[in-house]
Amino acid sequence: MQYPEPIARLIASYMNLPGIGQKTATRLAFYTIDMKDETVNEFAKSLLSAKRDLHFCSVCGNITQEDPCEICADTTRDKSTILVVEEPKDVMALEKVREYHGLYHVLHGVLSPMEGTGPEDINLSSLIERLHDDGINEVILATNATTEGEATAMYLSRLIKPAGIKVTRLAHGLSVGSDIEYADEVTLLKAVEGRREI
Amino acid sequence: MQYPEPIARLIASYMNLPGIGQKTATRLAFYTIDMKDETVNEFAKSLLSAKRDLHFCSVCGNITQEDPCEICADTTRDKSTILVVEEPKDVMALEKVREYHGLYHVLHGVLSPMEGTGPEDINLSSLIERLHDDGINEVILATNATTEGEATAMYLSRLIKPAGIKVTRLAHGLSVGSDIEYADEVTLLKAVEGRREI
Repeated sequence: MQYPEPIARLIASYMNLPGIGQKTATRLAFYTIDMKDETVNEFAKSLLSAKRDLHFCSVCGNITQEDPCEICADTTRDKSTILVVEEPKDVMALEKVREYHGLYHVLHGVLSPMEGTGPEDINLSSLIERLHDDGINEVILATNATTEGEATAMYLSRLIKPAGIKVTRLAHGLSVGSDIEYADEVTLLKAVEGRREI
Repeated sequence: MQYPEPIARLIASYMNLPGIGQKTATRLAFYTIDMKDETVNEFAKSLLSAKRDLHFCSVCGNITQEDPCEICADTTRDKSTILVVEEPKDVMALEKVREYHGLYHVLHGVLSPMEGTGPEDINLSSLIERLHDDGINEVILATNATTEGEATAMYLSRLIKPAGIKVTRLAHGLSVGSDIEYADEVTLLKAVEGRREI
């Protein structure tokens, strides 16, 4: 006996999500059937709305309902600094800190020769265009501290520096609250290299 | 800065699912935005269809598109045996074994004084009605091997036995492939109690 078709389809849909296998998908599908009608309707609507109503900002590439996005349109922000991140999620993470008041640029990926991702596959040309504007003093490279993130930062740095713009990279070191004992070697090395006088 | 409203709504929807917290929900929501339009449309449709097109079989309580369900309507099955389970998922699990050819009854829960679930809160009265039919020889109690499942099985057994119907319970013992060393004490006790001559 097979699952009734509607539930089989729902299981298949859940399995499209990352990290969700057959067992979890089945559990979620049966759970969905027991959910309230309104909740499921709202779920379906929010799925469709997320696809339909969200776009990428034509300036910075961040995810937004309006174009340009809230941050690019905000006249109170510092227009002389651009912080470059890999994904829209990174913008949200940095905004939570409430310490950075400049602009962003979202690459939507990193350079990865292994996966065949070159400079033309990420949101790079529009960053270069933005740098042609007068008034950009600093580009902060905040790609992830992975091999690809580092390589992308190096590539961007070589591309941007010749234009006379200051290029910086987020500090690497020990996470706050972490034990030196458990830190990996590369992190420790970066922490020693980046030591500061107190 | 808040997430744009459509993505905040989608994150909230994902968080309604069991075992999915804010971080996972956010990851799933951003993943959804990158999914193909068709895939998301199909996901939304399958959610609505699972709620709209699935019903509980009026005979056995199993989940089904037609009423009565495929199993109850199947004339080739043994109508003299009813296997009682807690949830529709359990029917699917047993059907996969392809060894049982009788009918089912889904309780949609177990008796649980702690959570205030009494006999009238589960799909029990319709089971008693089914037993009034002549021709039921055996009721197999396949509630889970938990405290509530055992208590429910005991309750059902006392209710059904006086009617002269044979009542059995699924065997308890070591899982196939398991190490005795790691089995819990109650399972080992059940395994010793239920030992069979070979």
